[in-house]
Amino acid sequence: MRFIAETTSDGVTERLFTLGDVPGAVWAPAESTGPRPLVLLGHGGGGHKTAPTIVARAHRYVTGSGFAVAAIDAPGWGGRPVPVEYEPFNAEIEELTAAGKPLGDAFARRGLVAAKIAIPEWQATIDALTGLDWIGAGGPVGYWGLSLGSALGVPLVAAEPRISAAVLGLMGYETLAEAAAQITVPVEFVLQWDDEIVPRESALALFDAIGSAEKTLHANPGRHMDVPMFEVDSSERFFARHLTVTRR
Amino acid sequence: MRFIAETTSDGVTERLFTLGDVPGAVWAPAESTGPRPLVLLGHGGGGHKTAPTIVARAHRYVTGSGFAVAAIDAPGWGGRPVPVEYEPFNAEIEELTAAGKPLGDAFARRGLVAAKIAIPEWQATIDALTGLDWIGAGGPVGYWGLSLGSALGVPLVAAEPRISAAVLGLMGYETLAEAAAQITVPVEFVLQWDDEIVPRESALALFDAIGSAEKTLHANPGRHMDVPMFEVDSSERFFARHLTVTRR
Repeated sequence: MRFIAETTSDGVTERLFTLGDVPGAVWAPAESTGPRPLVLLGHGGGGHKTAPTIVARAHRYVTGSGFAVAAIDAPGWGGRPVPVEYEPFNAEIEELTAAGKPLGDAFARRGLVAAKIAIPEWQATIDALTGLDWIGAGGPVGYWGLSLGSALGVPLVAAEPRISAAVLGLMGYETLAEAAAQITVPVEFVLQWDDEIVPRESALALFDAIGSAEKTLHANPGRHMDVPMFEVDSSERFFARHLTVTRR
Repeated sequence: MRFIAETTSDGVTERLFTLGDVPGAVWAPAESTGPRPLVLLGHGGGGHKTAPTIVARAHRYVTGSGFAVAAIDAPGWGGRPVPVEYEPFNAEIEELTAAGKPLGDAFARRGLVAAKIAIPEWQATIDALTGLDWIGAGGPVGYWGLSLGSALGVPLVAAEPRISAAVLGLMGYETLAEAAAQITVPVEFVLQWDDEIVPRESALALFDAIGSAEKTLHANPGRHMDVPMFEVDSSERFFARHLTVTRR
């Protein structure tokens, strides 16, 4: 892990890094020392590690709950080239978009390919970050990621035992049922009731498939990108409940 | 409104009252003076105005957010005789229970009858409570009620313009669609994914039918009575967001 830039604003220090070919960012309280919970942010399709919504969420979790927060660019987004494996899916997605049809299925199948690349990258990121003394090893790790962030996140959370709580959603069932069934940690699942990309029934089925005893569906009216701001609050409280040792 | 008993514990004063034939209770911070938001609690079937879960929720809202909180016995529950109008439904409910079948429909049809009696009682309760100087007129009013509390609450919230936010749920669609469509205030809707009384599809359809632009579905695994404790927190924050003037 190579740190390449550091800036501090509003009491939050942002450090940009690369880990192999993967660019990332990690946020923490300025001048923080001791170990602290780590929350990973998986951006959506079209986003990247320092997209404005990602940075705003990171600042919120850092200032509100004292977490360390990290994001990496998914394969093919942000500063990364499009993997050759995406090409057939991207052609299909362009066609569906042009025809005004739901992308659910093509989007999901490309997600499987993306997950295969991204999971070891996230695992290496956890390895490196938990080796820093201001995060620390063996502490709780959370994962937040919707849409593409869940296409990668559902298999990641299923595969990675260090992740102990996750906010997932805006994804459908078809390609993720098996991985979802292997998830056992607490999950908050975000669904948009009028999602034009992921059919409602498919998203409800993905929530249903999650193996966790504690899982909560949060559904709100509106389209794929219209998740209301109060769900940021809700996700922060969810992580505070599950990632901090002192519970109310 | 006649006050008949007053006790204070943990900084919360509970006053029992009767309003006509209706017994009720109202909780507020001890020695409170100024006006404050009012939250109405509609208990579930088998419950009553001072059932332990109702009292615990009232204390939580009073100490956490400084609200005044009130509950009344629904017609036929707590200290009140069973209305003669319930008899055919009660017979049917007993039969269904004995046969181990879902009660959804009979339960819902009895709810319509109960609502017709309860709505003017709740409205008189709001009139009386907002006439007290430590609650005050014209302030925000919230309603919380699941199951029976929604069988009465959905038509109440639709009919009563003083209610400006509501937590509803654990009810089905069939008898309530029309009233639900008339609701326009923010709603948090609680659903149990494995509800043995209300079929999942019927509860999802009731959420869908609610007319409000801001409505959030919170679904958790488990049976009708298994709503997790963190939904109490969530409802308090929901009311704090909508009933208090200073928003973050």
